[in-house]
Amino acid sequence: MAAPDSGLSRRRLLGGAGAGVAVGAAAGFGVGRWTDGGTASAAPTGGLDAVDLNSSTDFYTGAHQSGIDTPQQRYCVFMTFDLTASTAQELQVLLARWSAAIAQCMAGEPVGSVAPDRAGAVAVDTGEALDLGPASLTVTVGLGPGVFDERLGLASRKPKLLADLPALPSDQLRPELSGGDLSVQACADDPQVAYHAVRDLARMGRGVVNTRWVVLGFGRASAGPGQSTPRNLMGFKDGTRNIKESADLDEFVWVEDDVDWMNGGGTYQVARKIRMDIEIWDADDVADQQRIFARFKEDGAPLTGNHEFDTPDFSATDDTGQPVIDPTSHDAHAAHEHNNGIRIFRRGYNFTDGINEVGQLDAGLMFVAYMNDPDHFIQLQTRLGRSDALNEYIAHIGSGIFAVPPAPKKGSYLAQGLF
Amino acid sequence: MAAPDSGLSRRRLLGGAGAGVAVGAAAGFGVGRWTDGGTASAAPTGGLDAVDLNSSTDFYTGAHQSGIDTPQQRYCVFMTFDLTASTAQELQVLLARWSAAIAQCMAGEPVGSVAPDRAGAVAVDTGEALDLGPASLTVTVGLGPGVFDERLGLASRKPKLLADLPALPSDQLRPELSGGDLSVQACADDPQVAYHAVRDLARMGRGVVNTRWVVLGFGRASAGPGQSTPRNLMGFKDGTRNIKESADLDEFVWVEDDVDWMNGGGTYQVARKIRMDIEIWDADDVADQQRIFARFKEDGAPLTGNHEFDTPDFSATDDTGQPVIDPTSHDAHAAHEHNNGIRIFRRGYNFTDGINEVGQLDAGLMFVAYMNDPDHFIQLQTRLGRSDALNEYIAHIGSGIFAVPPAPKKGSYLAQGLF
Repeated sequence: MAAPDSGLSRRRLLGGAGAGVAVGAAAGFGVGRWTDGGTASAAPTGGLDAVDLNSSTDFYTGAHQSGIDTPQQRYCVFMTFDLTASTAQELQVLLARWSAAIAQCMAGEPVGSVAPDRAGAVAVDTGEALDLGPASLTVTVGLGPGVFDERLGLASRKPKLLADLPALPSDQLRPELSGGDLSVQACADDPQVAYHAVRDLARMGRGVVNTRWVVLGFGRASAGPGQSTPRNLMGFKDGTRNIKESADLDEFVWVEDDVDWMNGGGTYQVARKIRMDIEIWDADDVADQQRIFARFKEDGAPLTGNHEFDTPDFSATDDTGQPVIDPTSHDAHAAHEHNNGIRIFRRGYNFTDGINEVGQLDAGLMFVAYMNDPDHFIQLQTRLGRSDALNEYIAHIGSGIFAVPPAPKKGSYLAQGLF
Repeated sequence: MAAPDSGLSRRRLLGGAGAGVAVGAAAGFGVGRWTDGGTASAAPTGGLDAVDLNSSTDFYTGAHQSGIDTPQQRYCVFMTFDLTASTAQELQVLLARWSAAIAQCMAGEPVGSVAPDRAGAVAVDTGEALDLGPASLTVTVGLGPGVFDERLGLASRKPKLLADLPALPSDQLRPELSGGDLSVQACADDPQVAYHAVRDLARMGRGVVNTRWVVLGFGRASAGPGQSTPRNLMGFKDGTRNIKESADLDEFVWVEDDVDWMNGGGTYQVARKIRMDIEIWDADDVADQQRIFARFKEDGAPLTGNHEFDTPDFSATDDTGQPVIDPTSHDAHAAHEHNNGIRIFRRGYNFTDGINEVGQLDAGLMFVAYMNDPDHFIQLQTRLGRSDALNEYIAHIGSGIFAVPPAPKKGSYLAQGLF
C-alpha cells in the first residue's frame, strides 16, 4: 500500500482530489507522502501568449470602473496622493479633469498637446507614451478616508464602510508607504503607458494633491476571470482560489446599499505593500515551502490534490493521523471555508525595489484587493497576521484603503454624485 | 517670404532636410521659425507590434555575447557584484556555472529543479519564471577592473583598455550606485523572466560575489538594428543616431587587438545611471526642450530637418544669423561630427525609483553603451558634462565599466581563456 519514497512534487493523495485516503509511510513535511501514480513533468508549459499592445478599454463603458474585473494586465503603477486642497470644489475639478484625461490615456491618446503651438508654451502631455498604443491601459481611482475629514466639508457624504484600517497583527507599516487621500491604480501591458498615465495625472494634480507613495508592479501575481494563474516571487502560483465568477463578484465586490454616489458599481480597495524576504525564502527547503502554502510548487495543486483547481481537503490526514494541510498554512488560514465564507477579490502584482540595506534582494507583492466590505479584509488579515506560517518570510510594510466609485457615464466624471 | 507664426512643431526648413535656407521672421528659440508647409499630425502612430514571449536566443550562438547587438528587448535588469572570492578559481567556477545557467534561462528552462525530490532539499531554481517562456531573454556578463587587481593574481590578463573611469565633468556619482567587479545585464520582453535570471545568478554566486547595485529598466530608450526609436522619460525619441549598421559595430564596438581572451568578439561596457529631473523638465516650455535636444519633440526630426532620420545641419542659421541648432544642445555635443567621428553603441532603458526625498517623481535613464575603446565614452562625456544644455535637468548618479568577453562556444564558458 505504501508508495515508494520518491517523487515529492508529484506524489499525491491516492484516489485523486480530496479523497482523504492516507497512503505512504514517510513522516514529516520534508518527505513526499502522497501518490497518484502520475509522472513528473517539470518542464515549462510553453510561455504566455503574445501581448497585443493595441487593445484598449473604454473608460465610460460599464457600471464599474475598469481595472477591477478587467483581465489583469502585466504592469501596474499604484500611487497614492495627499490632498492639499482646502475646498471640495478643488477636488471636484481635479476629478473631472482626471476623468477626461484617463479617458484619453485609455484610448491611447495624449492628454493634450505634446508640442503646443505657442511661444513659451509648456506641453500638456509629457509625451513619453506617444506611439506606444493603448496597451490595454486601465486607470482606477479611489478616495481615502481623509477626503471626508473636516477639511472639505464632505463628512456627511462619506461611504458607509470607509475608515482607516485598524492596527492588524504583524503589521510593520511604514508611514511613508501608507495612507493617502486618493489612490490611482494604472495597469497596462506596457509599463511606460501605465507610468505615463500616473505621471500626467500627478502633474495635473499639482496644487490640489501631492504624491505620497508609489509601487511599480510587474508580472501580475493574481488572475482575473479567464486568466491562468501567475507566480509570485516565492515561485508559487498565486491566486488559484481568487474570485473568477461574476456571481461571486456581485456577492463580494460591488456595494449595494452604500451612500448614493457609491451605489451602482462602487467597491472598496485595500492596498498592502508586502515585503517578501526572498533570499531567506530561497534557503528554505521546498517541502517546507509547500507546507507553508499547502500547495505543490510546480503545478499549484493543493497538497491533497492532483490539479491546481482541485478543492483543498483541509480534513485529510496522513497515516500518522496528522493533517496533510498544516492548519497554520497560508491556504488554510486564507480559505473561505475557515472564514465564514468570506472572499475578497485580489489583483496583485510582484515588485522589486532593488537591493535592501543589508544587501539582499528587496522584493515582494503589491497586494490590491477589492471587496464590498473592508471588514472582510480585516477579518482575514487578523487571522493571517496572527498565525500564518508565511509570516516568517513576509511583512506588510505599506497600507491604504479607498472607496472606489462607479465608472462615470460619458459626459460625467468620477464621483460626480459626491459633490 | 516669412511664414505665418504658427505650427511650431511642424514648421521646418524650407526646401527640406539640411537645405540651410532660412525663412521666417520670428526670433528666439521660443517660437517656430521653419516651415515645410506640412500639416500637423500629433496623433499616436498606432502602437507597437505585439510581443512574442516564446522567442528565444541561443547563448552559444555567435562570436559576441547576446544582449549587445540583439534587437533590444523591452525590459532590463542590470546588476553589478563585488567579488568576495580570494582565488581566481572561485571566479572561474562561478563563470562556468553562470554560463550553464544563462544558457538554460535563455532557452526558457529552469536552472535546475524547482522541487527537488529529496527530503530537506532546497530548490535549485527559484521558480517564478516557470511557464513564462524565454521572452527573448539575453544575459550579458562583464568583468570590471577589480577582477584584475592584486586579489586574484589575474593582473597580467587584464584587458588592455580596462580601467576605472576618471572623474568626469558634472559627475554626481553615488558610491552605492557605482562600481562593481562583475556586471550582469539581463534583458527580456518579460521583466519577471529578466529578474528571475539575475536573481538565480546572484543566488548561485553566494560566497563568491555580493550584490552591489541594480537598476530595473523598462520601455527601452534606444534602438537596435531594425528597430523604431523609443522615447525617454523626457518624452523625446532617444537613439535616433545610434549605430545601426554592422559595419559600424565592427568599427566602433568589437575589439580587435586586445588580450587573447577578449579578441574574437569582446567589447567594453559603460553603464551610467542618469537621473532626470522630470518634474522640472515638464515645467520647461517645449520650444526650450526642443532647443536642448535640437530635435522636434513629436517626430524626432532635427530642428533643421523634416524627418527623424534627416542628418542635422549644424551649420544652418536663421535669418538673424543665429545657428538653428544651438551649439550647446545635447545633439550638437554628442554628434560624431563634433567628436572626431567617434560613435558608441547605446542600449539604454528608462527607469523609475518611485518618489524621491522631496516628493518628486524619481526617474531617469539607465544608459548602457558598448564600445571598443572606453576612451570614446570619456571623450564624449567630458564634452557633454562640461557644456551640454541638458545638464540642467540630468545628473549621472551611478557608473561602472566592464570588459565583456566574447560568447563562449558550446561546451565552454564565459572568459574561459582568461584562466
